[in-house]
Amino acid sequence: MSAFERTWTVRFSDTDPFGIAHYPRIVDAVHETSDIFMQEVGFPFWELSLEHDLGLPIVEVDLEFRSSVRAGDEVLVTLQTDLGESSVRFDYEGAVNGETAFFGFEQRVCVPPGSDQSVAIPDDLRAALATASED
Amino acid sequence: MSAFERTWTVRFSDTDPFGIAHYPRIVDAVHETSDIFMQEVGFPFWELSLEHDLGLPIVEVDLEFRSSVRAGDEVLVTLQTDLGESSVRFDYEGAVNGETAFFGFEQRVCVPPGSDQSVAIPDDLRAALATASED
Amino acid sequence: MSAFERTWTVRFSDTDPFGIAHYPRIVDAVHETSDIFMQEVGFPFWELSLEHDLGLPIVEVDLEFRSSVRAGDEVLVTLQTDLGESSVRFDYEGAVNGETAFFGFEQRVCVPPGSDQSVAIPDDLRAALATASED
Amino acid sequence: MSAFERTWTVRFSDTDPFGIAHYPRIVDAVHETSDIFMQEVGFPFWELSLEHDLGLPIVEVDLEFRSSVRAGDEVLVTLQTDLGESSVRFDYEGAVNGETAFFGFEQRVCVPPGSDQSVAIPDDLRAALATASED
Repeated sequence: MSAFERTWTVRFSDTDPFGIAHYPRIVDAVHETSDIFMQEVGFPFWELSLEHDLGLPIVEVDLEFRSSVRAGDEVLVTLQTDLGESSVRFDYEGAVNGETAFFGFEQRVCVPPGSDQSVAIPDDLRAALATASED
Repeated sequence: MSAFERTWTVRFSDTDPFGIAHYPRIVDAVHETSDIFMQEVGFPFWELSLEHDLGLPIVEVDLEFRSSVRAGDEVLVTLQTDLGESSVRFDYEGAVNGETAFFGFEQRVCVPPGSDQSVAIPDDLRAALATASED
Repeated sequence: MSAFERTWTVRFSDTDPFGIAHYPRIVDAVHETSDIFMQEVGFPFWELSLEHDLGLPIVEVDLEFRSSVRAGDEVLVTLQTDLGESSVRFDYEGAVNGETAFFGFEQRVCVPPGSDQSVAIPDDLRAALATASED
Repeated sequence: MSAFERTWTVRFSDTDPFGIAHYPRIVDAVHETSDIFMQEVGFPFWELSLEHDLGLPIVEVDLEFRSSVRAGDEVLVTLQTDLGESSVRFDYEGAVNGETAFFGFEQRVCVPPGSDQSVAIPDDLRAALATASED
């Protein structure tokens, strides 16, 4: 098991009058990382409900910012999973040249679309999520 | 008949290293204006398909930029409609202190969801759109 | 002292295939609330550095989501401040029809632009932030 | 000379209640393509003003939409340049499986930052832009 990684290049259109990324654009990049990861492991968000009758909605997001990122920065975004019975935490780190720029998590729960009740993560989805497990 | 108007305040998070709005943020503001307008005239986009079995998808957008806008600018965005049989053009102008900053249009067609075939705009929707007619 | 409030209308363009707002769009709405608040109390973000030689960059954001919001929902977003010596926390709540949909905070520090070192919040800025104090 | 190409994967967070991309997200993808192109040819937007005392602001954007794109679609976005004396048009096409989904252009002018007056595109920048020329 190892972390999922992808590189996010900060774009001019992400940046503010100080030349650094607006923080909601960092949230977009983090969220996009989860989208890429789910596609890579065979459970893209856009198929979860249609083909598996499940969703992984977010119940909490937390991000800490240690240093700013600038247009042209190649940010290595790392995603690791921490699995519960009916929930999963996606842990993130964004680093530029080996230095942490931001880190945090998305807490997600497994629920059928339209339901308020979480259910156990099924085995095939669990195995896919576990490919980026921290253990 | 008169134009529909709303004020868009440019936000810090819209602005770039030169202190002016990234142009995709202007597109967002233009599109948001159509959303507010449709709600005001009783046909919000989110009800069109559910309650009227129709959509007004965009087939073309064109915007020209005359002067830049900055955080804190109060942009008066004007929307006027030009109605066809099965289509409608939303004409826009954005002005700061009476000076045009940008203008352009969204060309929309009336189609049932999932269809490729445009249909005549029904009378009630036509009447609603005509409240902002240019004539 | 009382909370700062503003209404965010969820737009069609904020919503996903389930008809609910993509969560990064909620982050945008929260951040926009801070922007509106700072403008209201006379210290807009776009003047902070230019006129006061200060910034209030974010060091942490945390949001919890209790229920989803849909296009057309009028979300009452409340902002309250919790002041420290050289930092301020903006506490948020978003409610629809009196029911909490999301809540959380942005932790901000007071630093001169380009500096790594936080400084005490000056008295005039402190007084402005305190108008939405929780106490 | 040949077109610049890149693949844009439509993400879940780009999509609307019909499962298709909100059109402002397509504008984002088009604009991001210009950003990637300028970086590839050695004149990233974030260096233009600092190192070359120039900007390429947009004076017009026009996009036509032929078919919708969905989450997971791999959109081949093509950029070609049409050079004038002091301006350049970026022509775009977005295609999925060889079928055009959208096309259009950004018209840009060459101006020093803070100026209203366009200037001739300098030779080195012209050569870089010409690498994606239509001719």
